[in-house]
Amino acid sequence: MKLKLLLSFSILLTASISQAQDSLTIRKIYDEALVNGQAYDNLHYLCKNIGQRISGSANAQKAVDWSKKLMDSYGFDHVFLQEVMVPHWVRGDKEVAKIIDGDKEIAVPIVALGMSVATPKEGITAEVIEVQSLAELKTLGESVIKGKIVFFNRPFDPRFIETGRAYGTAGDQRFAGPAEAAKYGAVGAIVRSLTEIIDDYPHTGTTRYGDIKIPAAAISTKGANLLSSMLKLKKLPAVKFYFKQNCEQLPDVLSYNVIAELKGTENPNKFITVGGHLDSWDLAEGANDDGTGVMQSLEVLRILKTIGYHPKNSIRAVFFMNEENGDKGGEKYAELAAKNKEEHIAAIETDEGGFTPRGFGFTGLSAAALKNVKQNWKPLLEPYDADKLIAGGGGTDIEPLRTAVPSIILIGYLPDSQRYFDLHHTAKDVFENVNKRELELGSAAMASLIYLIDQHGF
Amino acid sequence: MKLKLLLSFSILLTASISQAQDSLTIRKIYDEALVNGQAYDNLHYLCKNIGQRISGSANAQKAVDWSKKLMDSYGFDHVFLQEVMVPHWVRGDKEVAKIIDGDKEIAVPIVALGMSVATPKEGITAEVIEVQSLAELKTLGESVIKGKIVFFNRPFDPRFIETGRAYGTAGDQRFAGPAEAAKYGAVGAIVRSLTEIIDDYPHTGTTRYGDIKIPAAAISTKGANLLSSMLKLKKLPAVKFYFKQNCEQLPDVLSYNVIAELKGTENPNKFITVGGHLDSWDLAEGANDDGTGVMQSLEVLRILKTIGYHPKNSIRAVFFMNEENGDKGGEKYAELAAKNKEEHIAAIETDEGGFTPRGFGFTGLSAAALKNVKQNWKPLLEPYDADKLIAGGGGTDIEPLRTAVPSIILIGYLPDSQRYFDLHHTAKDVFENVNKRELELGSAAMASLIYLIDQHGF
Repeated sequence: MKLKLLLSFSILLTASISQAQDSLTIRKIYDEALVNGQAYDNLHYLCKNIGQRISGSANAQKAVDWSKKLMDSYGFDHVFLQEVMVPHWVRGDKEVAKIIDGDKEIAVPIVALGMSVATPKEGITAEVIEVQSLAELKTLGESVIKGKIVFFNRPFDPRFIETGRAYGTAGDQRFAGPAEAAKYGAVGAIVRSLTEIIDDYPHTGTTRYGDIKIPAAAISTKGANLLSSMLKLKKLPAVKFYFKQNCEQLPDVLSYNVIAELKGTENPNKFITVGGHLDSWDLAEGANDDGTGVMQSLEVLRILKTIGYHPKNSIRAVFFMNEENGDKGGEKYAELAAKNKEEHIAAIETDEGGFTPRGFGFTGLSAAALKNVKQNWKPLLEPYDADKLIAGGGGTDIEPLRTAVPSIILIGYLPDSQRYFDLHHTAKDVFENVNKRELELGSAAMASLIYLIDQHGF
Repeated sequence: MKLKLLLSFSILLTASISQAQDSLTIRKIYDEALVNGQAYDNLHYLCKNIGQRISGSANAQKAVDWSKKLMDSYGFDHVFLQEVMVPHWVRGDKEVAKIIDGDKEIAVPIVALGMSVATPKEGITAEVIEVQSLAELKTLGESVIKGKIVFFNRPFDPRFIETGRAYGTAGDQRFAGPAEAAKYGAVGAIVRSLTEIIDDYPHTGTTRYGDIKIPAAAISTKGANLLSSMLKLKKLPAVKFYFKQNCEQLPDVLSYNVIAELKGTENPNKFITVGGHLDSWDLAEGANDDGTGVMQSLEVLRILKTIGYHPKNSIRAVFFMNEENGDKGGEKYAELAAKNKEEHIAAIETDEGGFTPRGFGFTGLSAAALKNVKQNWKPLLEPYDADKLIAGGGGTDIEPLRTAVPSIILIGYLPDSQRYFDLHHTAKDVFENVNKRELELGSAAMASLIYLIDQHGF
């Protein structure tokens, strides 16, 4: 009995010394991020000196070159590129759209959806059929839809607290709506921008075609509300819609994932990855989507190196290429992980904006392991308001790792979600909408979690 | 034994039915805030149609009149004003300041501190002595300080996670620095703006004089860095500073707290208060300080009324007057509470910006009561990310209630703090820097807490 007691006591003591050490290291991580943080300045360079960097563009290549040089400058153990072929879609001239109400024409803001085909040179003019869901297309059928422009207008549901869920729920209209409308003979598709905010900024984003490709664009929420209210009047002659875009799919281009690594002192072939995507949409600077993510990931490595932490396992910051319209970088990273027989413990993705941290979502943890994580790590992250540790999470870039390395734990970094879809995929996604401290706190939260995973595993 | 078991079971059942009811009501509150929220539009009116509303100004009176009318329009049980005399300080002409380096003069942005006296008409020109703390003044003594301008330049400490703590730590330079410098014969005081951000916007705010009043102003952080670096060069002739301001203290003015009330169905003389302050600084629109707070408070009442909730206790939304430079409204509210023998259960203050909710801080709860609050209410607030329930909190306006009604629980609403001091007391505190959803979630969080207090007490 005595021995057992002594043993328990010694385990408790060890646990408490270890917790104290963890607490000290995490404080060091935060101090480094908040006092000497470099993510904000790096992001400024990426946004203002390079700017938009859609896959396959000259700017995407500039971003690759600069990122590699930046990583080299920090003196990490290993910096390298992974070759990956990516699609090269170009928007072409600024899109034009009008609501035509008899003799009256009202210009409305649209943007072509990513990967969309062009309209004919003279544009498309057609009557409009408004729907709230993909299912409605089936109900209406080809007799109603044929020759028309389908207008998907189901709004964001504001009742979701986490805005990503509203995006997920409304998103099928953009991802799958145009392909579905084409099946019923629609000549074009116009999708309400995926946002709750009512303004004049249309939100782009990829659409996925089936066999038939019809021109597809997003309309601003103000434009959508106007169009919808005019359609409701059911005037004769019927309201028509005109739009013109000359976007184009060019041949695939050789591009790169850009990777920095701190070598593991005990398990160099075991990896913990943190990453975001380097490519962006072409309408602005890709500041929150996902300049913040890549610059935070790099900062995680910089912080760990600067405070003199020597990880047991190898830690990688990965700037994935082509998240926005192809996911080719994420697929390549997973493919090479499998091919090179890398053991991947965990991967964190930061692609929900550089906003104030809330916590992390975990995929692949058993209920018991998640309970442990909460019990042991929540108290360490609570003083930093980054202690929301929940089941479910990951990201597009790391998702392919799940198949490639089935034992991996995928982790989504969860910043506060309220402002993201005000900016997402619009001309407003600029550096000025990133807050320095929020960005820095995110880097620190991820560096802290990686430290804990590296020290204790799951 | 059986009876006891049955009893326990029935208590458990009651608890669980009550928790389920609470959960449903809170969901209703959030739905109403997020789907039909009016706080954002009301705030827009206050910011754009009234604008700055410093105590004693014509705009402050406009804000009182409009607020009263707005409250009347909602049909609450009781809407009334409380008379209160408030100071009337005016800034006068735009301030001018220059660093004088021999023949060179460099303009820098300053603003007079609230309640500061004017400089002589021709301004003040004097040598500058930079200090990091009030204690340093004593060390330097009158022989060094006399005839000089004291420049308080201790920066915000970025290591605090909650920025309010950095404000608290650096704040003595503004509150007490000028009065202290005057004791040693300083002819003026220049205070580094209370913010971490490095930019050209000076932050005003009240300073408190002793017997000797010297002109006092805040300098932008960029200006402060420039001045400090020039002083470090120790050139001869010494760098001088020039500033000119003609602010003025006019006679006190009659003003008002504006109050709306839902009458308690069981305890009409027991009160739960939620409030912010209607007055603002004069440099912008007082959007986050504290337009968001008053509009959220009103929205709390609107939500509870709209969902058909009939509170047991009376619930008040209070628009306090004169928080920024006198606290006269808060003092009056407490004075009348005592005089009218009102029983006050709790008061929540929302005066830290309309940012995304984190939770609440409680003052006056025993450790056991706080534990109960956490145990029972945290699970209900967790789905809404508003479940940080901590010891300590309140606000300037409700603080006098602590003496007037010693049994009261004071509660500070805790929004995320990262962005507040970028804007606080500057020309940037405008409507455009408020996010609609963040504002609405705050109203819903406070309405939910008030519902729980009203139902269950502490």
